[in-house]
Formats: sequence, C-alpha cells, structure tokens
Amino acid sequence: MAIILGVDPGSRITGYGVIRADGRHIEYIDSGCIRVGEKPMAERLQTIFQSLATLIGEYRPEEFAIEQVFMARNPDSALKLGQARGAAIVSAANSGLAVHEYSARQVKQAVVGKGGADKSQVQHMVQVLLSLSRKPQADAADALAIAMCHAHMSQSILRVASGAGKVRSGRVRQQ
Amino acid sequence: MAIILGVDPGSRITGYGVIRADGRHIEYIDSGCIRVGEKPMAERLQTIFQSLATLIGEYRPEEFAIEQVFMARNPDSALKLGQARGAAIVSAANSGLAVHEYSARQVKQAVVGKGGADKSQVQHMVQVLLSLSRKPQADAADALAIAMCHAHMSQSILRVASGAGKVRSGRVRQQ
Repeated sequence: MAIILGVDPGSRITGYGVIRADGRHIEYIDSGCIRVGEKPMAERLQTIFQSLATLIGEYRPEEFAIEQVFMARNPDSALKLGQARGAAIVSAANSGLAVHEYSARQVKQAVVGKGGADKSQVQHMVQVLLSLSRKPQADAADALAIAMCHAHMSQSILRVASGAGKVRSGRVRQQ
Repeated sequence: MAIILGVDPGSRITGYGVIRADGRHIEYIDSGCIRVGEKPMAERLQTIFQSLATLIGEYRPEEFAIEQVFMARNPDSALKLGQARGAAIVSAANSGLAVHEYSARQVKQAVVGKGGADKSQVQHMVQVLLSLSRKPQADAADALAIAMCHAHMSQSILRVASGAGKVRSGRVRQQ
C-alpha cells in the first residue's frame, strides 16, 4: 500500500492529487489546485514549493509522480512551465521523495486506455475510477491521473519483476 | 554594506558569485560552479537547490540576483533552463531572500558599460573590477557580473530615492 502524490505543474495553476494504491485498488484521498496567477514570479514558485511541502507533510506520500514534457509550445511558455516544474520537483526531492515521470500518452493510456484521449475523457475516467461524486477541476484531474498512472505502472513493474524472478529461479534450477 | 549572491543557472552548470558591496566599493568573496551534468533531472535540480542553500547558509547574503531570460533559444532548452531557474529561485526564496532579476543587457551595461558586450569582455571586466588574480570561469564570471549589476542598480536606486525624497519634501514645503 502506497500513498502517491501526482502533480501537474503550471506557471498559473498547479494541480495536485493524492491517492492510496493497494494492488489494483485505488482510493481517493485529496486533490486540488495551487493558484498563483497574479503574484510576482519568485513568489509563485515559492508558493508551489511550499504548498507541495505542506501537502507532503500532511499526507506523507511514499511516491511522487509528474508529467514529462516532450514538446512545449514555445520558448516563453516552456521557460515558465520549466520554472514551475523545477519548484515542484525540488519540493518533492527535498522531502526525500523519488520523482517519477510519465508522458501524457502514458497517463492517458493508463487512465482512459487510449494514448490520444482528450482532457474531458481523462476528467471523466478519473471521476469514475475514483468514485467521485463530481468531476474534479481539470488540473486536479490531470494530477490524479498522473498519480493513478504511477500506481498502474508500479503494479505492472512489480508483476513483471516477480515474473522475471520466477524465470530466473527456473533457470537457476536448470543449471 | 550588503552581501549579494548572484546566480547564473543552467541545466548543466550553475554559476554563482558572492560579493560584498559597500557604496561604490565592491569586494570579492567567493565564486564557482555547481556542475550537475550527468545526473538524473530531479537530482540535478535538488543539487542546485541544496548547493545554493548551503552557500546562503555559509555567506548569509542579504540580496539575491539572477539573470532574467527574455528569449530562450528553443522550447526544449527553455524548459530545462526554466527548471534550473525554478530550483535556484526557490532556494533563495525559501531562505527568505528577495529575488532580483536583471536582463543580460542590464548586466553587461553595468559591468562593461555596453549592453551588447560579449562574454569574454564580461569575464575580463569582472576580473579587473574585483582585482582577481585570474579570469573566473565563464559561468562564475556571469554570476559575479549579475551580483555586481545588482549592487550597481541598488546604489542607483538609493541615489534616485534620496533625490526623489528631496523633491517630495520640497513640494511639501511649497504647499
């Protein structure tokens, strides 16, 4: 059983989602948005850093997952997004959490079953899979989806690892 | 008298420079590079954050200055640079330092007297102005130049502010 914090950083809104994953069972704990739109840049980054540190202190996640950025739209927005990502990642790393990255395609594949799914499908499936009474806000839904993707991938890795273990022990017996 | 930490962040090398500014007199304290080239991304950012936090703890600067980025070359390098900047800025803000930003043009103007100066001129003038026995490494020189630019600008602001104060008090007397 692991508590996972998923984060979808942005220069104006950073979504976060906290889930508990126990094998195939996933339970919703919390989600929301860190809104920093109108502050000076350094204060924005400090707010992202500090808000995530507070969440980490409150929920004590064992895992941290964030979306990998392959292609940013333009240099200016990429720089701003990078700064927000830097603040978020440093907050996690500073609390001793390992940082896991997943591409948007991996996240959509894990949650919707289709790498090319759109945002509203992700929102819908997050609501269904976590049995939420209403649709989470879009950035919070993305963050929850990233956390769920990590839960899914860790589970797959565990399965593969235990499978590989069997193969290896079989080979050892044959020697 | 103020101790100023200047930082020139990068995804591989982050330069830093520490100076003590006392009116027009500027004294060299320390400079160097935080090299994070080959580590995984989260570790790089954590190293930048932690190294700067250590420097701040050691030298107790009152001021923090960083280069403003106007035009990044391409989205991918902008994202990486943004992450490094985010880690550096959060380190300063987390230590309670105000973050001051200056454009490359302002930095060159302050140190070389020419906004379009090239890197080797900046290196040369940093060596001359701080009476260093040898040229600092390029990223360290840039960081020292940023710190010196801040010292220069604060001094100018102080002068303008005290001038403006006189004008204002004059006006008050005229009423």
